[in-house]
Amino acid sequence: MTMLLDNIHTPDDVRKLSIGELPQLAQELRRFIIDTVSQTGGHIAASLGAIELTIALHYVFNTPKDKLVWDVGHQSYAHKILTGRKEAFKNLRQHGGISGFPKREESPYDAFNVGHSSTSISAALGMAQARCLKGEQYKVISIIGDGSLMAGMAFEGMNYAGHIKKDLIVILNDNEMSISPNVGALSSSLSRIISGHAYNKFREELKTILQNIPGIGKSAYRVARHSEDFFKGLFVPGLLFDELGFRYIGPVLGHKIELLIQDLKNIKNLNGPILLHVITKKGKGYEPAENDPTYFHGVGPFNKETGKPVSHTSTATYTEVFGNTLTKLAEENPKIVAITAGMTTGTGLERFEQNFSDRFFDVGIAEQHAITFAAGMATEGYHPVAAIYSTFLQRSYDQVLHDVCMQDLPIVFILDRAGIVGEDGPTHHGLFDISYLRPIPNLIFMAPKDENELQHMLYTALQQSHPVAIRYPRGKGFGVPLDQKLNTIATGQAEIIKQGEHIALWAIGSTVYPAIDASERLASEGIHCTVVNSRFIKPLDDETLVHIAKNVKALITVEENVLQAGFGTAVLETLHSHGSVVPVCCLGIPDVFVEHGPQKMLRAKYGIDADGIYSTAKKIAHDSRVGIDPKKNTAFG
Amino acid sequence: MTMLLDNIHTPDDVRKLSIGELPQLAQELRRFIIDTVSQTGGHIAASLGAIELTIALHYVFNTPKDKLVWDVGHQSYAHKILTGRKEAFKNLRQHGGISGFPKREESPYDAFNVGHSSTSISAALGMAQARCLKGEQYKVISIIGDGSLMAGMAFEGMNYAGHIKKDLIVILNDNEMSISPNVGALSSSLSRIISGHAYNKFREELKTILQNIPGIGKSAYRVARHSEDFFKGLFVPGLLFDELGFRYIGPVLGHKIELLIQDLKNIKNLNGPILLHVITKKGKGYEPAENDPTYFHGVGPFNKETGKPVSHTSTATYTEVFGNTLTKLAEENPKIVAITAGMTTGTGLERFEQNFSDRFFDVGIAEQHAITFAAGMATEGYHPVAAIYSTFLQRSYDQVLHDVCMQDLPIVFILDRAGIVGEDGPTHHGLFDISYLRPIPNLIFMAPKDENELQHMLYTALQQSHPVAIRYPRGKGFGVPLDQKLNTIATGQAEIIKQGEHIALWAIGSTVYPAIDASERLASEGIHCTVVNSRFIKPLDDETLVHIAKNVKALITVEENVLQAGFGTAVLETLHSHGSVVPVCCLGIPDVFVEHGPQKMLRAKYGIDADGIYSTAKKIAHDSRVGIDPKKNTAFG
Repeated sequence: MTMLLDNIHTPDDVRKLSIGELPQLAQELRRFIIDTVSQTGGHIAASLGAIELTIALHYVFNTPKDKLVWDVGHQSYAHKILTGRKEAFKNLRQHGGISGFPKREESPYDAFNVGHSSTSISAALGMAQARCLKGEQYKVISIIGDGSLMAGMAFEGMNYAGHIKKDLIVILNDNEMSISPNVGALSSSLSRIISGHAYNKFREELKTILQNIPGIGKSAYRVARHSEDFFKGLFVPGLLFDELGFRYIGPVLGHKIELLIQDLKNIKNLNGPILLHVITKKGKGYEPAENDPTYFHGVGPFNKETGKPVSHTSTATYTEVFGNTLTKLAEENPKIVAITAGMTTGTGLERFEQNFSDRFFDVGIAEQHAITFAAGMATEGYHPVAAIYSTFLQRSYDQVLHDVCMQDLPIVFILDRAGIVGEDGPTHHGLFDISYLRPIPNLIFMAPKDENELQHMLYTALQQSHPVAIRYPRGKGFGVPLDQKLNTIATGQAEIIKQGEHIALWAIGSTVYPAIDASERLASEGIHCTVVNSRFIKPLDDETLVHIAKNVKALITVEENVLQAGFGTAVLETLHSHGSVVPVCCLGIPDVFVEHGPQKMLRAKYGIDADGIYSTAKKIAHDSRVGIDPKKNTAFG
Repeated sequence: MTMLLDNIHTPDDVRKLSIGELPQLAQELRRFIIDTVSQTGGHIAASLGAIELTIALHYVFNTPKDKLVWDVGHQSYAHKILTGRKEAFKNLRQHGGISGFPKREESPYDAFNVGHSSTSISAALGMAQARCLKGEQYKVISIIGDGSLMAGMAFEGMNYAGHIKKDLIVILNDNEMSISPNVGALSSSLSRIISGHAYNKFREELKTILQNIPGIGKSAYRVARHSEDFFKGLFVPGLLFDELGFRYIGPVLGHKIELLIQDLKNIKNLNGPILLHVITKKGKGYEPAENDPTYFHGVGPFNKETGKPVSHTSTATYTEVFGNTLTKLAEENPKIVAITAGMTTGTGLERFEQNFSDRFFDVGIAEQHAITFAAGMATEGYHPVAAIYSTFLQRSYDQVLHDVCMQDLPIVFILDRAGIVGEDGPTHHGLFDISYLRPIPNLIFMAPKDENELQHMLYTALQQSHPVAIRYPRGKGFGVPLDQKLNTIATGQAEIIKQGEHIALWAIGSTVYPAIDASERLASEGIHCTVVNSRFIKPLDDETLVHIAKNVKALITVEENVLQAGFGTAVLETLHSHGSVVPVCCLGIPDVFVEHGPQKMLRAKYGIDADGIYSTAKKIAHDSRVGIDPKKNTAFG
């Protein structure tokens, strides 16, 4: 069978097709995406829902001169395939392959890099404003999901767009979900618009009637006739957008290409800020994804016939251990409340939600609100646990600092996906939190070496009357047994795992086990290490650190975070303030944005796995300045 | 004359007064605030505008059981005076005196600490939710200005409030300005509501008419009668709030106490989220402030008869030098655009705005949008300069990292008010930016030693094709001459100011001159210092640093930032990675939130002024480990 897709190398090729051929192209794209993503994993549900919209956008607009600004970017797979990356798509999210998100370095059709939500309106507006300053003519189109629209940042963008009134098209891709089903009053409002579609039919009729009423009286008629605002309020759905200075058009059905093209052609030449409300279905055309779009938001490789994951493992993830432990603790402590920002499943809070629905708050994509809402509850005696991915907590940095830590309120920040996350890449790695959180006064900051310690740390955090952050990596734990009885860890107390006279390996979180592994190989070569699980990033165990530093020839810190201002630096600060002169080597991520790729591979690349620690330690041992002579010292081993 | 105010010790005393006496109380408060703030300085305009509202709130609500959550807190002076802090008010913003903002540590009537804008709805909602969980009965009232309402965070709070539908009262204190006159479509929408007040009179009339039209036809009438949404759209102003799930009431006049009390009593027992729209005048009752509310937003001591500032100085502030330099550079470079988030005056951009109105963008209180809007312009070839106070840039941390630095876009971040700001205190000190910005890859980060160097740094920043941040302190420069010709500073090149063999003083920004002063005193005592102006926080001048470290006995870093993850730490990182073993002492702010007080005094307290540097250097010189013998070494001096 001839594939249309085989002859599509740029959007120009799409524009050469007849409108009648486009539904076939959509089907081919759909099949191609399902085939590929079932092998690579990826964000399939959003992309399947946006296929017709993507085709229609490239068909109507003159990309790349006209600019498509995708919000979040999960929905951009069809866009990537149509813009010359069909072959490259087979290496989607593989190391060295193309990114799962739009990326300017990859293609001139990708107007803005993205990964976090709700940036597209602001970015597109900046481009539209620049176009006006340059006196050029092109269209800028932001494509944003209804979930992303709920974030304050999107509101700020719309509010300013309505103010400066430049030509800007916002496509609201409304599938009535962000990742999980949406929350928020605006979301209900959108649903009302959709369900109220029927009465739009009456609006023209009503207008005619009003104008023709003989006895309506002077006043009301004059108001109705002269007040544009009043008329808008009377006849147009999407009042909210109207209030924000946008011309609202819709809702329109997002899977009928022909109609979509007509709508896009109609709005193409309208002036000012336009919002086109498009209704789509997440996972469209792939039954398993349509039925469970939350699961299919982002998936690993799966069997495309059944939709079941290819590999299955019994080892619990950190996320699961967190969720289960919190649920258990909440049974005994009625003051525990849990807060998430649109990530109930991602942060492992489904069971908590089921068991304690009155103490569970999914605020939607609204990280700023999530934290200060938690602060309000804390002032009234509750102990909120806010579970937000490390990378997304960047969105609420000021709220963590100004609203929580400055008031020293007891809130537990759970930073899931801290460290290298893998295939989602640079926008999603949680590689900055140690650096940006540790300067904040009053905060206690921990990272568990394994999933069992996570339990104890969560228990410990909920005993504190201060803010506490706990960071842990994406994915599975080490499969260690989980203690039934939970203990309080003394604040700032490191755990000395083993003692050796040559080199101290001072590790935190995910790097503790690799440090132990490395120490075993080193020991077999006569290099004897002290291995410490720091447990705390803040406060550090100064006493143990200084004591150990005195009794080894060199000290190596290991962290899964950038080195700048990171954990190793905290160790340096402490050693210096105590006058220690032990040579220190810090292992961690250098001053770069880390690319996408498998966690294991990236950890190896940046030298923070067991091999990397081993090699560094060995090199240090052979450094004449350090003065370790393994051969001699084995005698004392 | 008997003063009512003399007998007001708590809000209970207010509630004992008759409604007829309250206008007199308002006048007394007004006089008292003007008398005091003309001596202490402070945020007078907002507080004068909220006097009647404050009295009415305490009169109607049972504070402190009912909770008032003030947004920003600039408007809380009357609240402070009525809640037992009349005497303390005389020490407003003085070191050891009461804060200029609500503070829970000060009074049970202060429900939530504040300083940054737009947090009150989220915090109040958290309290309201906690109240429901506890099964208690009290009211929670957020009082928010129209400027603060424009921030995305406020939108997030409202959107969630409308979703969970708990009893919550939001008082929109609308003076049609934030600090400068407002921008944003929503702001225009509020103005339309106010100006459209007249037509509200028709709404009941129109309703009657519609219901009584005989020939209206089946469909339209049924729609109108059955659709609540439709009726709301037809009759109620404030549709936006309605869409967000709030019951909108207003607008009402905010300086008629009796009417305000009536309105507050009416809404007190309504259920669900309520928004009361109150119209006030900033600076109300004090003519100079009414005429120039932007100037009187926050002022130093002034002559209360004339409104003129008590002291006047001809030395330019950093802010002025920045604004003038940018205006000059923009004349030659049409790609320069300037962006501020509601702080045109505060960031010194008035002249730029006057000269280049088409290249100037005040986005209102919307720091997140400001940065990503700038990023959008940068992708289209412009060179945006985003001027935001250090403390407020915390609001756009993710946008700086994810939208600008990850794409390596050429944007200049101007961090005014970096360091100790003085009387505004902990919520406004800019003491974290070095720590939170330096971990971000691709960013170049500078701080000038004086206002002349600021000019060169701004010029340098605009030559770069990378993101650049420049931090400088609040207030006057050193009065140095300003070069006419501007030069590019080589990236990462430190300036060696003087050389001495004993101790290196490695200073940055505001601490360079104090380091020079200290070195002169030390020299007279035989301790010879190398003084370096680091100029760059990132990249550091590794070569110079390592070289100097080799040639001195000890090194002292000095910064006006927290020590944790700060500038001194960056120096430690570099020295360690080069195997340097020179003893290092880092001077800066310890791990605390710094209180309010004069800049000079706080710098002395934390040992980062000339005296502090001198004392530390002297102590180090006498430390036997360092091994400086000043007596002996003077021979070589």
